[in-house]
Amino acid sequence: MTDTVRGRSTAENAQLALLLEVSSTPKPGNVDRHRNHDDLRFEQFVAGAVGARAGLDRAAAGAPVGDAFERAVAGMRHQTGGNTQFGAVLLLVPLVRAAAAGDLTPEGARAVVDETSVADAIDFYRAFEHVDVAVDEPPEDLALPDVRQGGDAAPALRERGLTLADVMAESAPGDGIAREYTEGFERAFRTADRVEEGSGPVTDRAADAYLAALASEVDTFVVTTHDRETAEAVRRRARAARDGEETPEELADELVERGINPGTTADLVAGGLFIALERGLVV
Amino acid sequence: MTDTVRGRSTAENAQLALLLEVSSTPKPGNVDRHRNHDDLRFEQFVAGAVGARAGLDRAAAGAPVGDAFERAVAGMRHQTGGNTQFGAVLLLVPLVRAAAAGDLTPEGARAVVDETSVADAIDFYRAFEHVDVAVDEPPEDLALPDVRQGGDAAPALRERGLTLADVMAESAPGDGIAREYTEGFERAFRTADRVEEGSGPVTDRAADAYLAALASEVDTFVVTTHDRETAEAVRRRARAARDGEETPEELADELVERGINPGTTADLVAGGLFIALERGLVV
Repeated sequence: MTDTVRGRSTAENAQLALLLEVSSTPKPGNVDRHRNHDDLRFEQFVAGAVGARAGLDRAAAGAPVGDAFERAVAGMRHQTGGNTQFGAVLLLVPLVRAAAAGDLTPEGARAVVDETSVADAIDFYRAFEHVDVAVDEPPEDLALPDVRQGGDAAPALRERGLTLADVMAESAPGDGIAREYTEGFERAFRTADRVEEGSGPVTDRAADAYLAALASEVDTFVVTTHDRETAEAVRRRARAARDGEETPEELADELVERGINPGTTADLVAGGLFIALERGLVV
Repeated sequence: MTDTVRGRSTAENAQLALLLEVSSTPKPGNVDRHRNHDDLRFEQFVAGAVGARAGLDRAAAGAPVGDAFERAVAGMRHQTGGNTQFGAVLLLVPLVRAAAAGDLTPEGARAVVDETSVADAIDFYRAFEHVDVAVDEPPEDLALPDVRQGGDAAPALRERGLTLADVMAESAPGDGIAREYTEGFERAFRTADRVEEGSGPVTDRAADAYLAALASEVDTFVVTTHDRETAEAVRRRARAARDGEETPEELADELVERGINPGTTADLVAGGLFIALERGLVV
């Protein structure tokens, strides 16, 4: 393929990754090209991806991760669906920074995370002011300020010298996106490999990669919004769909009907699509 | 609704209009959320809208219409589907300029067209170098250089002092987008009114406005790619679907199967969506 076809900028690839993610179908439990949730519609994800672009542009220009993330979420919010791509953007921003620095590898992405500061952590907390994000009730011994404090957590973050990397490391046990920050974005890179190894339209490959990811690990967003038992059951059902015991389409219809939305797995697909696009995937 | 929900920039609204247009369904004959053509897929329109953004940003910043258009088409081309949104972007750029100047009205848009120069005409011709656009074989007495010359038409355009407004006026009889340039974007504004008067999700309203536009006038892209008889038949069938004599879904399936793509009518919907978004339509 010619460079004409692939000549997108890094920020354009990040925005396109958000749009291709929601356009891929079937992605059991998520809004996709053929399905809406009652309170969350396809076009709201589209508007979210349009609004997030300014923050992605900033990340590509080298802005700090927290600043770019906060700006992306502020823009994403310009639609009535609420939280469409908070997790996806959180995953994308360090990957965009790594790509802009010419090192879109697990090591390059780790380096971006390692360089985060207390200011990044404060901006991350501020982003929660823009949109209602489903979070667990914090345990009493939590090592972090409650994210629901938003920017009011700044003094506590400063006093304890907590960087965004620290915040993510503390959150990693219960949050699949935070775990990516601590583990070199391993699952996002694996998802990119799967998309690249697939054949046919990009959106079909992304749907396959989604089902593989859903079958392999419990979705932490389902744990938060439902419970671990439900999330385990979803993982088993995804594996059964991978094994041909039921169709992904049926599973997709059922999960949407039950309001079960494995959002973290969708976020991983957005990250994987971005990596694949940067590496030359053609649409 | 709060400003938080509507706080998009003009360029963001233009990009969102392109994305909402292709997401609206059913839009008989066009790629939509539920349909692809064999050689033109949903995700290629999505990529086209991502790539067009840089040109839309330029238009919003006050760049000349031709320059912004040429840049938008150059970016739109970063996908393998070819011409996805040439006509839609051609329609959007003067509307974006009018909005950025604070006068998104038929008069404001006319003023933008009236101010176009020979340089704008040359950039318009250059845009044809980026992508294969379906055009009629020019008649022998054609008053304009053949667009297939691309930038090579520059000397002829300069010699004859043809502005972009002149080019559009000459093209208007056979081209629905050129006619918008000469008639104050009347159909785009009417489409915006229809979208605003509708109820329910924005994409449903846009699909209704599309069918109304398809029923009211012959689609010039169908005339170019097929013939006038086919285009007339499509208009009649759209009217029948409006009157409940057949379903829009059936008509959509049939036209896609026959490879009949009323692209100019889809372009008008993109223009109408942009106007409605600028006037406060909430997604």
